[in-house]
Amino acid sequence: MKILVQKYGGTSVGTIEKIQNVAKRIISNKKKGYKMVVVLSAMGDNTDKLLEMAYELSDNPPKREVDMLISTGEQVSISLLSMALNEAGYAAISLTGSQVGIKTVGNHMKSRIADIDDSTLRKHLKHDKIVIVAGFQGINENSDITTLGRGGSDTSAVAIASKLQCPCEIYTDVDGIYSLDPRVYPKAKKLDSISYEEMLEMASLGAGIMHGRAIEIGQKYNIPIYVASSMGDKQGTTIKESDKTMESTAITGLAIDNNDAMITLSYVPYSIKVTAEIFDRLANKDVNIDMISQTSPRDNTVNISFTVPTNELTEAKEVLSFFESKYPQIGLSINERITKLSVVGIGMRSQSGVAARIFVLLANADIEVDMVTTSEIKISYVINTQDQQLAVKTIAEEFNL
Amino acid sequence: MKILVQKYGGTSVGTIEKIQNVAKRIISNKKKGYKMVVVLSAMGDNTDKLLEMAYELSDNPPKREVDMLISTGEQVSISLLSMALNEAGYAAISLTGSQVGIKTVGNHMKSRIADIDDSTLRKHLKHDKIVIVAGFQGINENSDITTLGRGGSDTSAVAIASKLQCPCEIYTDVDGIYSLDPRVYPKAKKLDSISYEEMLEMASLGAGIMHGRAIEIGQKYNIPIYVASSMGDKQGTTIKESDKTMESTAITGLAIDNNDAMITLSYVPYSIKVTAEIFDRLANKDVNIDMISQTSPRDNTVNISFTVPTNELTEAKEVLSFFESKYPQIGLSINERITKLSVVGIGMRSQSGVAARIFVLLANADIEVDMVTTSEIKISYVINTQDQQLAVKTIAEEFNL
Repeated sequence: MKILVQKYGGTSVGTIEKIQNVAKRIISNKKKGYKMVVVLSAMGDNTDKLLEMAYELSDNPPKREVDMLISTGEQVSISLLSMALNEAGYAAISLTGSQVGIKTVGNHMKSRIADIDDSTLRKHLKHDKIVIVAGFQGINENSDITTLGRGGSDTSAVAIASKLQCPCEIYTDVDGIYSLDPRVYPKAKKLDSISYEEMLEMASLGAGIMHGRAIEIGQKYNIPIYVASSMGDKQGTTIKESDKTMESTAITGLAIDNNDAMITLSYVPYSIKVTAEIFDRLANKDVNIDMISQTSPRDNTVNISFTVPTNELTEAKEVLSFFESKYPQIGLSINERITKLSVVGIGMRSQSGVAARIFVLLANADIEVDMVTTSEIKISYVINTQDQQLAVKTIAEEFNL
Repeated sequence: MKILVQKYGGTSVGTIEKIQNVAKRIISNKKKGYKMVVVLSAMGDNTDKLLEMAYELSDNPPKREVDMLISTGEQVSISLLSMALNEAGYAAISLTGSQVGIKTVGNHMKSRIADIDDSTLRKHLKHDKIVIVAGFQGINENSDITTLGRGGSDTSAVAIASKLQCPCEIYTDVDGIYSLDPRVYPKAKKLDSISYEEMLEMASLGAGIMHGRAIEIGQKYNIPIYVASSMGDKQGTTIKESDKTMESTAITGLAIDNNDAMITLSYVPYSIKVTAEIFDRLANKDVNIDMISQTSPRDNTVNISFTVPTNELTEAKEVLSFFESKYPQIGLSINERITKLSVVGIGMRSQSGVAARIFVLLANADIEVDMVTTSEIKISYVINTQDQQLAVKTIAEEFNL
């Protein structure tokens, strides 16, 4: 059986006309001889509308009930697409997450797929039916309906493709994956392919257009994920195992993040206990720390800088004011006008000096770097937001992004 | 365990505010010490809106997919009500037809409840949770979602009450069951109680406000069904086993039906074969015959009159034109301006002469009766629609309806 899994996002099934358009795309693949499994999101802004009603009733509705509510969105879109296909003369059947046997674990509204019982899927494919699956949802060990978090339909699609050991295509409202956000840098290049690892880094940096969990599953089962637009036939991007070509490129992508603030504590007593206490108290307030740097001690004090999400700044300040009173010599400064630039590329493993090359580039352009952190395939720089455009242009041109 | 099943119809949960209102009503019962099971319909005209989308895609969408689509309506209302109750501090859990174990048989869009696995219900009730059940829906032997036809939520509620052996209350947008339609006869009396049998007859005559199947199940398991308005606290009507008081009343209800036409065939050859052929051909065209009367033969011919639904008249005429050509002596007349009045009452069993009493009443009022049929607890009269108001007033006043 030559099987193909396709996923269509909410914008692609936002109206009856668009659903008919998706039906046509599926039929054209069917005619090419594929057994088709189609995973859908809810229509357009349906999920948001449902959530609005929930939040009219409660600021904090039980998450189990929210899952019960919002999982109806996909049930509507899958039944309508099945009708469109049947009307066009193609046998199709829609299945909820529960019916398809998508077993999840973990909390409501952010469950994870534990396993998929593919017997129902295979049965219908064997009878040459187009199987339309509700994305984003599953069922837990209590038979409660669960959802996988925003973008969870991607994960449903990749998990099903992994179980069926077939390719997976994700159709969305962007036409592929770019080396950097085209809204920031219009000349940004669309990538033909990107490795799972790079895509995971990009996704975690907020630059990705895909659910991180989907990429992890694709990587684990080595399922190529093709991302493209559901409108037209433009070539998209394939997320796959890294190959020689990918490794020859130093940098694949550049992620730009404006959602962090940088906090600097100066004259902090040079003691691992004090440092530990600071980060422990921040963690207890659920403040997420991303980058951290500490200067070498001078006069038995150090300067510590770290970034936190801007929307967690209030909690962070509360914690830090405690330390200001406890250690009056500590100085506190907060910079909200920072940009985190991250370059990602598996080529960095074999090519040394990428960090240095970028330092030189930025220095030549008179751009000051406040913090740097590096990992195996990623380097992040904190710069002032006013320098962002120049820095992006300089790096993109140098590395041909 | 003192359990109570309540069902709220679509109008009663049409808005967020109305859902909050229903939550208050449930809480007041909870405070009285009841373990509550609440069965809901979809919000307002939600089901119609979903069906509209389906019919945009296909004139004849697969019924399985229609069930998949419209069953989302109740899933939305139950989760929202559960949120409202939890927000008010009462533990509640919503369950789909599938989760509650409502097993159905028969065709999609008009399935029948075969059984209910009450273990999940009882488990949650034992933990003192308010259980909110999606009405109208169940699951068949293929694990496909099914629906029970218009008004099916009543059936869900009564079936659950039957399984739990507890009373059932149906809250709707009318405030009880009337002896006759108050829109036709404003002085119509609301009944305190009505027997299952009478209610079944009324329902089958189109005068009922309840799903016939719900009444049958209530009767089979002897579950009293209380019907009242969800707005205010006006006393409603209880559908229950007949008792002495009911039997002392000759007539409980009067149903008025304007949806039939009367067809009269004159000079039909007096032969059972011809009569059989006529009704056989009508049946083959799916024309539903209700009342039939035949005169005694004269000159070896008879006159045959019968009623058919007005919207099946075209098919009926096709069949009959065939007989006009086959037996040129046959005369055909059609009267679309007829009213079928049916009086219903279990008291008729013990009180003879009700039919005669009505004949005299109508004769005194100069109202001509075209056809009469009688059954154990029902008598139906066909009269001209122009006489309807007078006939209704005359009968209602005489029998104190």
